[in-house]
Order: sequence, then structure tokens, then C-alpha cells
Amino acid sequence: METVTLTLPEAEALSREVLSDNGFSESHAAAVARNVTAGERDGCASHGLWRLLGIVDTLRKGKVSPDAVPQIDDRAPAVVRVDANGAFSLLAFERALPLLCAKARHSGIAALAINRCVHFSALFADVEPLTEAGLVGLACTPGHAWVAPAGGSRPLFGTNPIAFGWPRVDRPPFIFDMATSVAARGEIQLHQRAGKPLPEGWGIDAEGEPTTDAAAVLDGAMLTFGGHKGSALAAMVELIAGPLIGDMTSAESLAWDNGAGGLPYGGELILALDPQRFLGPQADEHLARAETLFDGMRSQGARLPGERRFDRRQVSERQGVTIGRSLYEEIVALRR
Amino acid sequence: METVTLTLPEAEALSREVLSDNGFSESHAAAVARNVTAGERDGCASHGLWRLLGIVDTLRKGKVSPDAVPQIDDRAPAVVRVDANGAFSLLAFERALPLLCAKARHSGIAALAINRCVHFSALFADVEPLTEAGLVGLACTPGHAWVAPAGGSRPLFGTNPIAFGWPRVDRPPFIFDMATSVAARGEIQLHQRAGKPLPEGWGIDAEGEPTTDAAAVLDGAMLTFGGHKGSALAAMVELIAGPLIGDMTSAESLAWDNGAGGLPYGGELILALDPQRFLGPQADEHLARAETLFDGMRSQGARLPGERRFDRRQVSERQGVTIGRSLYEEIVALRR
Repeated sequence: METVTLTLPEAEALSREVLSDNGFSESHAAAVARNVTAGERDGCASHGLWRLLGIVDTLRKGKVSPDAVPQIDDRAPAVVRVDANGAFSLLAFERALPLLCAKARHSGIAALAINRCVHFSALFADVEPLTEAGLVGLACTPGHAWVAPAGGSRPLFGTNPIAFGWPRVDRPPFIFDMATSVAARGEIQLHQRAGKPLPEGWGIDAEGEPTTDAAAVLDGAMLTFGGHKGSALAAMVELIAGPLIGDMTSAESLAWDNGAGGLPYGGELILALDPQRFLGPQADEHLARAETLFDGMRSQGARLPGERRFDRRQVSERQGVTIGRSLYEEIVALRR
Repeated sequence: METVTLTLPEAEALSREVLSDNGFSESHAAAVARNVTAGERDGCASHGLWRLLGIVDTLRKGKVSPDAVPQIDDRAPAVVRVDANGAFSLLAFERALPLLCAKARHSGIAALAINRCVHFSALFADVEPLTEAGLVGLACTPGHAWVAPAGGSRPLFGTNPIAFGWPRVDRPPFIFDMATSVAARGEIQLHQRAGKPLPEGWGIDAEGEPTTDAAAVLDGAMLTFGGHKGSALAAMVELIAGPLIGDMTSAESLAWDNGAGGLPYGGELILALDPQRFLGPQADEHLARAETLFDGMRSQGARLPGERRFDRRQVSERQGVTIGRSLYEEIVALRR
């Protein structure tokens, strides 16, 4: 495959240019460009430069605001809400982050609710800045109703990711970011495109019967990871990043989309906890226990979540990112 | 099997008597008696009256304080810590609960850390009172190191349960309470006693090889549910209910036990979120979306977590609880 290699500044500049040319405001273009460049840099191509195609398509379909200004609502001593006003979540997150951090540092724990946002980005990017601020972060968001509850047979939940981040001194943070479905929807689409059967247990057909046929699962329903336990977690995400924050469930998001094939629209909940506030002067001593836990994982060959991503980041910072020439050309062609 | 049926007040009085006779203070005896009676009432025998045997055994081994008075530390605007001082977690929880609820109502979200507690009880009982107060609750606790991280081969994590509760108007709350291990340790012990092989995927032997031999798993390691995803959640529980709150990890708890076979000793973290503070006057309208989600689950045959427990509770309230005569006699024999 013919490829093109871009330095990280080149990748970000190209992304910003494509987004601005298509009508995104400078602030939105900058936030989105940083996000997709970071995804590519971290070896997470599914949230990388490729996303620009879908982002511009969503804009052209009129399914996302290119310039809405996020509106911050200082709701309660430990709660911030930010209304994205129909734009992507990223700028709203960026604008509300300082207040979330300040509240967590003051109160010990705080919550940020992003409302009425179109969501395409990995939650990894929303917990990492918390860890950089020395905070523990937890984030989740519903999606479109594609996943059946355990014991059911029809789509009701989104792939409902949960991300968690733990700050470490002089080391990359401990971060996981996982769908509560067995697989990502994109992985099922890739199997379909390649004409390959799915692994057992990924989904059911429209009659609720187990199948390894990708098209049948896309028409039927995906399944939660770990059976009824993953299903319970998926329901929790629906509740705390839906009704609790005054926003849509995955079923409501899909109904709102009304067949347009747009991205999920709704809310995201982010919690931040400040170890310093919980622990006071003993913080360093107790946080060292976490390092002992990580050593206990690594010494038996268990990887730390997020590790691969940070390894790849170092390589990308030196060598840039490499994408297929055809993808590069599709992206360049989006400029106007 | 010969059985004995007790009304709920009889079961609770018997429990309290056994606990007091063995030296527990009135407050501790009352809190523990309420908890084990509630477990039995809800059809959860593994956290029911049977627990009295282990509780008294733990006391006789000197591994739990019978009378420590919980010490509340109003740590930060949205954080309470309570030091159980080596007693069971229940009285500490009970004493700190009003401050946790007040903080959640004021700040929108608040955290309670229970420290230095011996833990035998299901987390279900710690989120249900939050839902009764109209709050959303989330609780977790490490255990003893019995579970291997994904990709590893030796015990490091506890069975690390996560419980979540969502309040509902005029209906039992939505509550799940699940181990992040595939199975509870007790289930493996039951297979051992019955001489039955374990289902595949529950554990590995001391060499890290998959096995269905219960004794080999008890000597080796249990596995997390859902592979690396369950493992990531188990690690999260270690971190936020261990170092974050200045308490032990599961490995530290097991080392502290030093072969005595006592119950886990360490911390528990409980979060409370107030929908009224997030939503203001729109609360009712948004909480109705949650009911639509539940309808969407039930209409396709998916049970709501906790449902079976509340059904059983109604039966027990009318008919009392029935236990084996031999267990009943063992409990009665604990009186002095």
C-alpha cells in the first residue's frame, strides 16, 4: 500500500485546514484537529485522521453545528453542566475543564455533564487531561441503540464506553477506555467489508438468534461484553450519562437521527476526584501503593491498559504518522 | 431437608442475640443483624444468616473489633471519611450516611470513604439506602488477592464488587451488585465440596494453566469476567477503593491476614449523586426517560437487576425466611 508520512504538526495543520474550509469555527476546528491527530499519533486509527471524512460528512448533512459556542452552567458546588448546543463535544469539554478541575480540587470530587453534543471521539481524550492535572477521572457516554440487553433480543443500549484514568508521577497515566459491547461497531463493519464471519458471541440477528454473519448483526443487535454484567454496566451508562444529566438515552439518540446515519447525539458524564483532597499530607505514601499494584501486574506479564498507546505516541513524536495515500488524498480533497 | 421458618423479627432478634452474646456492642450487633436478616429475606443466602458463623469465628480469632466506635472525618466539602477502627463496615456506613447524603444534596455529588473496616457484606445494602434517599449510588471495595489480572497468572485483585443503584418513584430501585471476577469465591468452594468440576473459564491453577478443578483454582487464581475488560474494572476498584482513600489493596489485605483465613480488611468507596441538583425543576421529566429505558428492557424479556431480590423480599415479609435445621442449630449454639 502506498503511504504518506506526516509530522504531527503537519497532520494537525492539515486537519484544521480541512475543518475550517468546510465551515467549522476556528475553535471547533482546532479542538477537533487536535483530537484526531492525537488518535492517529497514539496508534488508534479508528479515532484518527480517518475520522475527518465522517466529521465533514456529518457537517454537510446538517447534523452538527460548526460554530456553536458552549454555554457553561455552574450548576452546583460540585457539578458543572456545559451545553454544546449541537456541536461536537470536544470544545465544550475544553471550555468546561478548568471549572471541573477547580471544583474537584475544592470539593474533593466533582462532575461535568456535557449536554446536547454530537459525539465521535474516544473518551480516552477526556480522562487524560484530568490525569495530567493530578486527578482521577471517569467518563462515560451513551451512543445509538445498537446493543441488546442481556436476556433481550433487540437493540436498546449504545456501545456505551467507560473510560478511567489514574495519574502517575513522571510516568504515563493508567487509562482504560472500553466499550461495554463485546466489540466496536466499526469492527463488525470491517468484518462485513472483508466478507469474514464474526467471532461467536458478538451479536444476534433480527430474530434474536446468535449469528456470526456481520450483516445480520448490523440488522439485529450487538451483545454486551461479559453477559449480564456488561449489560448492567451498559444500563448504568444509559442512566448516568442520560436521564441523570438531562440528556438522551441511546434509543432516543437513534430515534432523533431518524435514519440519517449521523453520529450519536446526547450527553457525556465525567467525574473527577482529587487524591490530595482525600488523602492530605499522606497522599504520596498512599499513591505509592498504586505503583506497587502496577508492578504486581507487569511482573506477571499483564499489560497496563493504555501502555501500548503511550509507547506508540513516543514513536509518532519522533517519526510522524503514516496513513494510506488514498486516505490522504480523500482528506486533501475535502479542502475547498 | 429439615427446615426452620422464622419471621423477619425473629431472625433479626436471634442474630442480634448471638452477636451480643459473643461480645459485639449493641450498635454493631444491631447493624450486622439487620444486614444478615436482609440478605436472607432477599433470597441471597450467601449474605444471609449463614454469615453469622463466619462473623463469630472472625471475632473469636481476634480479627475484628466488637465495639470500635466509627470516627467521622469531614474531609472536604464533598468527601466524608469514616474510620471503622477495625470493626465491620456496617456501623461506620450507617453513622456516616447522613453526612454523605447531606453533602450530595448540597454539592450534587459526594464521596464516602470507609477505612480500616473488615468487610463481609454485599454492597447492595450500601447503595439501597441512597436510592431510598432519592440519590444515585455507586459503591466498590477490594477484597483478598484471589483473582489474576488478564494476561497474568497469579492472584493480585480481589473479587472487587461494583454496585450501582438508581432511585425510582413508587417502585423498588434499579440495583446491581456484581463481582468483577467470573464467579464468587463461595461458588468455587461449593463446587469443591460437591466434588463437581467448575465451568470453563473460572480459573487457572498455580502454574497459570486453565483448569476446571476447584481445589486447583483455590490454590491458583480466579479469573476476571469479560477478560481484559473485567480486569481493567477490577484494577479500577483496587485503585479508587484502595490508594485513593488511603487504604489497602487486595494483595495488602491478604498479606495482613497472614494465613488466618479472616475476612478482607481495608476500605470501601461510595459515591452519591443527586438528580435534583443535576436537573433542577426538570428532574421529573428527565427521570421519566429512565422508566422508558426500563420498559424497553422488560418488554423484550430482559430482567432488571435486583428485581428477583425485591420479589423475594415481598414473599419473605409475608412468610418469613426458611433455613435448614442444622444451620439453625449451629446458629443457636453460638449463643452463650
